[in-house]
Amino acid sequence: MIKRYENPQIAEIWTDESKLAAWQEVELAVIEARDALKIIPEEIYSKIRDVLRANPVDIAWWRDREKETQHDLQAWVEERVRHLPIELRQYFHEGMTSYDTEETPFLMLLHKSLTVVYAGCDALKSSLKDKAIKYRYCPQMGMSHGQFGEVQSCGKRFLTWYKEIEVAEENVRTQANNLRFSRLSGAMGNYGGVSPEVEKKTLELLGFEPFYGATQILPRQIFGPLAEALAGLIAVISKIGTDIRLGARSPRPIYQEPFGKNQTGSSRMPHKKNTILSEQLEGMERMALGYLVMIMQNIRTWEERAIEQSCVERIAWPDLFHVVMRSLTVCIKIMEGLQVYPDHMIKDISDTRGTWAAGPAKEFLRERLAPFGITTEEAYRIVQLASFMAFQPSRWAKDIRKNPPQSFKAADKLLQIAPAASMQSGFSVIDLIISKAQLSVIDDLDVNEDQISNWNSALRALTFDEEWQKVFSVKDRLKDEAVLYKEILGI
Amino acid sequence: MIKRYENPQIAEIWTDESKLAAWQEVELAVIEARDALKIIPEEIYSKIRDVLRANPVDIAWWRDREKETQHDLQAWVEERVRHLPIELRQYFHEGMTSYDTEETPFLMLLHKSLTVVYAGCDALKSSLKDKAIKYRYCPQMGMSHGQFGEVQSCGKRFLTWYKEIEVAEENVRTQANNLRFSRLSGAMGNYGGVSPEVEKKTLELLGFEPFYGATQILPRQIFGPLAEALAGLIAVISKIGTDIRLGARSPRPIYQEPFGKNQTGSSRMPHKKNTILSEQLEGMERMALGYLVMIMQNIRTWEERAIEQSCVERIAWPDLFHVVMRSLTVCIKIMEGLQVYPDHMIKDISDTRGTWAAGPAKEFLRERLAPFGITTEEAYRIVQLASFMAFQPSRWAKDIRKNPPQSFKAADKLLQIAPAASMQSGFSVIDLIISKAQLSVIDDLDVNEDQISNWNSALRALTFDEEWQKVFSVKDRLKDEAVLYKEILGI
Amino acid sequence: MIKRYENPQIAEIWTDESKLAAWQEVELAVIEARDALKIIPEEIYSKIRDVLRANPVDIAWWRDREKETQHDLQAWVEERVRHLPIELRQYFHEGMTSYDTEETPFLMLLHKSLTVVYAGCDALKSSLKDKAIKYRYCPQMGMSHGQFGEVQSCGKRFLTWYKEIEVAEENVRTQANNLRFSRLSGAMGNYGGVSPEVEKKTLELLGFEPFYGATQILPRQIFGPLAEALAGLIAVISKIGTDIRLGARSPRPIYQEPFGKNQTGSSRMPHKKNTILSEQLEGMERMALGYLVMIMQNIRTWEERAIEQSCVERIAWPDLFHVVMRSLTVCIKIMEGLQVYPDHMIKDISDTRGTWAAGPAKEFLRERLAPFGITTEEAYRIVQLASFMAFQPSRWAKDIRKNPPQSFKAADKLLQIAPAASMQSGFSVIDLIISKAQLSVIDDLDVNEDQISNWNSALRALTFDEEWQKVFSVKDRLKDEAVLYKEILGI
Amino acid sequence: MIKRYENPQIAEIWTDESKLAAWQEVELAVIEARDALKIIPEEIYSKIRDVLRANPVDIAWWRDREKETQHDLQAWVEERVRHLPIELRQYFHEGMTSYDTEETPFLMLLHKSLTVVYAGCDALKSSLKDKAIKYRYCPQMGMSHGQFGEVQSCGKRFLTWYKEIEVAEENVRTQANNLRFSRLSGAMGNYGGVSPEVEKKTLELLGFEPFYGATQILPRQIFGPLAEALAGLIAVISKIGTDIRLGARSPRPIYQEPFGKNQTGSSRMPHKKNTILSEQLEGMERMALGYLVMIMQNIRTWEERAIEQSCVERIAWPDLFHVVMRSLTVCIKIMEGLQVYPDHMIKDISDTRGTWAAGPAKEFLRERLAPFGITTEEAYRIVQLASFMAFQPSRWAKDIRKNPPQSFKAADKLLQIAPAASMQSGFSVIDLIISKAQLSVIDDLDVNEDQISNWNSALRALTFDEEWQKVFSVKDRLKDEAVLYKEILGI
Repeated sequence: MIKRYENPQIAEIWTDESKLAAWQEVELAVIEARDALKIIPEEIYSKIRDVLRANPVDIAWWRDREKETQHDLQAWVEERVRHLPIELRQYFHEGMTSYDTEETPFLMLLHKSLTVVYAGCDALKSSLKDKAIKYRYCPQMGMSHGQFGEVQSCGKRFLTWYKEIEVAEENVRTQANNLRFSRLSGAMGNYGGVSPEVEKKTLELLGFEPFYGATQILPRQIFGPLAEALAGLIAVISKIGTDIRLGARSPRPIYQEPFGKNQTGSSRMPHKKNTILSEQLEGMERMALGYLVMIMQNIRTWEERAIEQSCVERIAWPDLFHVVMRSLTVCIKIMEGLQVYPDHMIKDISDTRGTWAAGPAKEFLRERLAPFGITTEEAYRIVQLASFMAFQPSRWAKDIRKNPPQSFKAADKLLQIAPAASMQSGFSVIDLIISKAQLSVIDDLDVNEDQISNWNSALRALTFDEEWQKVFSVKDRLKDEAVLYKEILGI
Repeated sequence: MIKRYENPQIAEIWTDESKLAAWQEVELAVIEARDALKIIPEEIYSKIRDVLRANPVDIAWWRDREKETQHDLQAWVEERVRHLPIELRQYFHEGMTSYDTEETPFLMLLHKSLTVVYAGCDALKSSLKDKAIKYRYCPQMGMSHGQFGEVQSCGKRFLTWYKEIEVAEENVRTQANNLRFSRLSGAMGNYGGVSPEVEKKTLELLGFEPFYGATQILPRQIFGPLAEALAGLIAVISKIGTDIRLGARSPRPIYQEPFGKNQTGSSRMPHKKNTILSEQLEGMERMALGYLVMIMQNIRTWEERAIEQSCVERIAWPDLFHVVMRSLTVCIKIMEGLQVYPDHMIKDISDTRGTWAAGPAKEFLRERLAPFGITTEEAYRIVQLASFMAFQPSRWAKDIRKNPPQSFKAADKLLQIAPAASMQSGFSVIDLIISKAQLSVIDDLDVNEDQISNWNSALRALTFDEEWQKVFSVKDRLKDEAVLYKEILGI
Repeated sequence: MIKRYENPQIAEIWTDESKLAAWQEVELAVIEARDALKIIPEEIYSKIRDVLRANPVDIAWWRDREKETQHDLQAWVEERVRHLPIELRQYFHEGMTSYDTEETPFLMLLHKSLTVVYAGCDALKSSLKDKAIKYRYCPQMGMSHGQFGEVQSCGKRFLTWYKEIEVAEENVRTQANNLRFSRLSGAMGNYGGVSPEVEKKTLELLGFEPFYGATQILPRQIFGPLAEALAGLIAVISKIGTDIRLGARSPRPIYQEPFGKNQTGSSRMPHKKNTILSEQLEGMERMALGYLVMIMQNIRTWEERAIEQSCVERIAWPDLFHVVMRSLTVCIKIMEGLQVYPDHMIKDISDTRGTWAAGPAKEFLRERLAPFGITTEEAYRIVQLASFMAFQPSRWAKDIRKNPPQSFKAADKLLQIAPAASMQSGFSVIDLIISKAQLSVIDDLDVNEDQISNWNSALRALTFDEEWQKVFSVKDRLKDEAVLYKEILGI
Repeated sequence: MIKRYENPQIAEIWTDESKLAAWQEVELAVIEARDALKIIPEEIYSKIRDVLRANPVDIAWWRDREKETQHDLQAWVEERVRHLPIELRQYFHEGMTSYDTEETPFLMLLHKSLTVVYAGCDALKSSLKDKAIKYRYCPQMGMSHGQFGEVQSCGKRFLTWYKEIEVAEENVRTQANNLRFSRLSGAMGNYGGVSPEVEKKTLELLGFEPFYGATQILPRQIFGPLAEALAGLIAVISKIGTDIRLGARSPRPIYQEPFGKNQTGSSRMPHKKNTILSEQLEGMERMALGYLVMIMQNIRTWEERAIEQSCVERIAWPDLFHVVMRSLTVCIKIMEGLQVYPDHMIKDISDTRGTWAAGPAKEFLRERLAPFGITTEEAYRIVQLASFMAFQPSRWAKDIRKNPPQSFKAADKLLQIAPAASMQSGFSVIDLIISKAQLSVIDDLDVNEDQISNWNSALRALTFDEEWQKVFSVKDRLKDEAVLYKEILGI
């Protein structure tokens, strides 16, 4: 991974130093297991352990040697063995093939990387939880298909994101748990060098269980689910990023990414606060899908093994972890500095002209108008008509829609009168249109005068009591969100 | 492809009937070639041709036979041969392997499908061109990072989309041109059955050139570029769909998808006009990427050939073409019925409070204030300060941002006063703030009283003449768009 | 999916009929839940249920209606409601949005499809188990990097495949278990229409649990793991297919795909038994990766929902299941008719000239030669030298390698003498070379006369007793495979 | 890219230093263009150019500054401007947005990288051409479906690979040619800062043409084809790698990867020469597909631009080029040291027992037996029967196939008699079976005694003259390969 997007903890875990240390852990565990099973003479293990721990690996020596042999494990074995007295040498890497040594360390690095990921998830969840609580009672328009839908609380959206992260993290943990198996069963997987007993004991010492039925390597299918889980986590974070971008759009952002007091935006457009962090999250998602594609192909190999997967794993896994961590880190940064604008949310709701409660308004009318012979279908049409009436364009707007400007000069003129012109329209809200029985014919809906007259009569006869007011009450509408807070956060 | 998304022309091209007809074309062309080269006795060709054309394939017979042999080409050869007199049979499929017959027809179906695609591209481009011309002088805010950037014409955005389609189609045509090669060079590609002369003549009759260096099949690398080009076209259409969705967002859509006069939206939310067509375009893009992934893997095969690619090609190619055509058809439908709202575009510009021209305003000040000792950097800061001042939140908004509502009851109250409250703020526009020398200290920018006082003095000394007005003139700003219309549409 | 690769059971599950039946199950369960919670009057539920069950959906009517409304769920609601008496109509689909109805059925179809997949896995495992037992004692060369490695039993390779399928199926089951959650929480996911109590009860009736924290839809991340698991299963089957292909290669196949007694191979090359079934498995893997790519992208959506994912899910899921089933079915067919050639396996081992036991031979020498002052490193070199000696090319071969034929005439001559020429070489086996102390200098290894003379002396002094014979005993070498049979099959 | 797989030339091209140098080229070209168009005062350009060239970028200063601004381009502009006298500063980066500066350099780096790729392709083609010529007359069995098919020359396979690389490289060059367009058209792509004239002149100076119809960036669709072409090239190299692996398999490799005289193979299995290089090529292909997936997704962006694509391009492009170069380098290494075994190829042909010419043998019989009343179909059956007879297993083999060993002890016994047992079978070759009229009944083909008797009579009556010998002549069979050498290599 390039420096720009590198996570230092992940980078540390995937260094050569870290890998070689893990190799040594495995080799020593094998000897310790043989010691415990009385296969080798007493004190062999402790002697080897002491010598090797006293002599750290000479990385430069090892790299030089690898260049000659083209075999990193073999070069390392030679580096290690040279520190041992002659009589101990035969006990080191005895009867093992390269992947007996290498397979478990690969798993160890994965598990270590996951620890870093979990910490990131915790921090992000914590930040999302805070926001969910802080904005629990702050209403905003829920959006489906990019359109104002029904009202919800701003906190509930944060809560949904919290849940997304929780589910994604849970998926990662589930898949990680399936990586508790490893192997040291020889070149063909039938214990040509290390016996089943030694394998079991060794893995126990290292915190793993034997995978029975491997070949020279673990079947690569077992890594796919983890890659999917990580790619899924990144995609979920990217989805949150998309929502931030959508919420931050001109002309009326409901939130914006953190922006420093001395930060300069575009040199050309100084007023802008760009959502560059959130956008990067989508870039990360694109990469994650690529790494998943790489890793999924590793399942295919030949017979007892071939080494197609090795180079892919050396690159795709650390890079995937870097991308996970970059996503988490950027999302945490966004959340912690997020500027939230409840005033704009309120303005949004106000701008829906009452349609945010069109659903329950329809239910109210359905029940109350039934005695007047108004059907369910008609109740629906009344609310629809009122909604469309509330959004009828002004004459100015109608005209300009029909005849867009035909020169830039005309455009400049329109621009000058725009502020005034847009004030003209006598917008109304659907609760008034309905309760005042003001339904009337409009262009874009097929309803005739007679129907409307009939409906207005019925509406006039109706009492719009407290229940009607409850229809347009955020309090009433959002009461069941309490269940979500209880079930998800336990509060 | 499921019926719902199927294109009838593409479906027709990829039927068994169509494929078998193409196989027959190839077999006849081989015989015709041998006739032309005097390899076979005179009149053999015309006799076989006449018999086969007089006897259409019995599809049911063929399917039954295929079930037995598990070999579709062999079953078809048997179906055809049975119509021929004994003495002619040896000349049919003589010395050929299956892929000598099958390869060219596959290319023929691809080329036929492309003809359908080109017609779709033409229709879409025509629609986009109309819109680009109609809205050539209608100003709208250009958007970068989802933020109002600088002004552009609405027509120019359509023009950009037009260009995207043109480039994508050009890419398809380039790759298709590379599919003018085919082969009939036998089981190993070294002319075990058909001679180089017969291959050349046959392909000439069919409108192809020989590919020298094939194995039993054409190398599958030659199909990847076409799949990429088609996936690219779909992605470009999806990008246009995304822009439609973004423009259609509440609260102030600048365009909306076509919506029927009797159409019912959501049963629950009758006011909504959802962007379901544009959203489907992104779904199509997702699928196209999947089909590209499938096809790219077909390059890998064993030695002179194996048949891994066959099932993939039977499915991925027609499905990819269906997805292309669905994307084109849906996008054409959107464009032809698109509702465009210039009034909202004008309102957007107005809402930028002059910042849409912040760039040239800065250039103006840089030049004019230089004699007063104001540096380039300061000119930038003046415009930035004015921009930030223009967007200072009202007291009501500031308060609610700091203290979001802590109960739904409080939220309901806020909602009641919202329409009035949001009118309070005495917003100004940057051209006035600057020309009236009204700069003042604000919270979110590090500028001190002394600096501001100095700047205001300089501004007061300045003449804001016609040049200043040009800064805020759409006409002046968009004059170079003419170059784009000339270069792209030739008008 | 095209007919050719369609699985009839999967096709049945994903028909419109099947989907509509599931929709009805959900709608009825909602009413039943409201009945159980005493929200609606008594007998409403039973009446509606009886009417709807008595009146099957008119698919043609529904399709016509859908064409008008462009909304399949709405068209279906209308189809259903028309059968109900006026007074019952309000209770059907009451307060629900489309995805309250549609989400659970989607999950139901997935679960149904999985049942078919599990049955396929069972059949394949059963077939692999039989083979693992039948060939438990039949030795074959294990292969790494396409090279003869160490000996293993043929049964053990089947056992490894069995384990691969078992693990892959287990992964599918794990992910499926995570799909036990569903939702009916309204347009924004905050219970705008259906209350939390009704949701819970409804889902309980349908065998699901509520997912708290959804939006209008379940977050799409929850489907990725299942897609990965299915793609993983397909990839594992493809890996088995690759191994079959590798084993079936000329000149000495160890197994071959089933081949009918009356089957005709290539019309041109009648002797061939092509591995067309196994090759198709790789094609299926390529497609599966494509479908996974499609489905993974569905995680991204906007805010409380948009409908990008819908078309992808309509296509990718059934097609992915067809591909899974095709893979399973083809693999089962291969396994059930597989022709296994133990004679060729034996011949392979014989052809390794003793190197199949080079590892333990080295261990033997290391221990026994130590008293003669021969180091571990030298023991290794002795075995290596013997191995290389065993494979020295004949003079004829050496010559032809150096000077390949320079005309086809020369090639024809070589071909005539080939059978005799290849008999010339006095190949030996490493157990003889070593035990007879016949080491000598060769070209391609850096060992000098003195060393070799020294080694031969030591070897001559050694007793090659029973232990040496055990080194070359399959019985001794494969004794630990018993552990694998016990752990995997419990036998 | 990790060090292990890094290409030094590619790494150099994608360093910060290299990128910043390209940025400076663009900025200077803009000023030079304005100078040429007399937009700025004389000598401004030469002064700026001299100062900047005299003052190399201080990378450390720039990196520190970037950390503050989070904007690499802006930080660099500041670094550059500080070297200029006050009065020149306004002419640097004047009226430009970041991507006016950055876009062209990105293209420049791509083109530079391609130069490295082309050199690699040349080297590989040269190596393949040598082999194609050297082994032009060396016969080998062509393989389809992993089975011996018909004979071909070993040179022809190299020739096919040569052609694959040539086609793939041609594809890269075609796509690269489409990257000759660039842009500097401002924040919205409508020349808000730089005029069309300046853009044109600047690009001309840099060797590019203007792309009319861009937004703030070039549409990302134009990069997909290049990514596809590179991934295609890698896939083609991987296909060659697969063929090497297949050819190198035990027991009778026809070629092997280079193997050093002092190289140690597996410590456990000293006789092995693993195809680790070829296998790595497949790993590279897997990665390339991932990078292609990443890059294809970059087409999607919002409106006039958002920055999702940036991080992907910073990583995927250099990594993709490293993977291309690794593939080329490894493949060249394999080819240059490849060990080719014509003796084994000859042995393979010999082992086909004449079936390598079964096709023309059938043609011979068809013609010659016609006068005896033998049909085309029967001629086919005669050759098939002869082929099957030639491969009848020995009694020993039949027995062991029916009854595989039931203990390892039994297996050991089989192994002891294997060398002798496998000599028993009196194999014949099809030219003798046919010309000696030795057809007889066998188990696995449905032909009865009467038919066979009839056929043998006819065969006995036939003269097997020179024409029959030509059937089994490599010289005759491969004569048309000359066309391939002429068309592909011009020799």
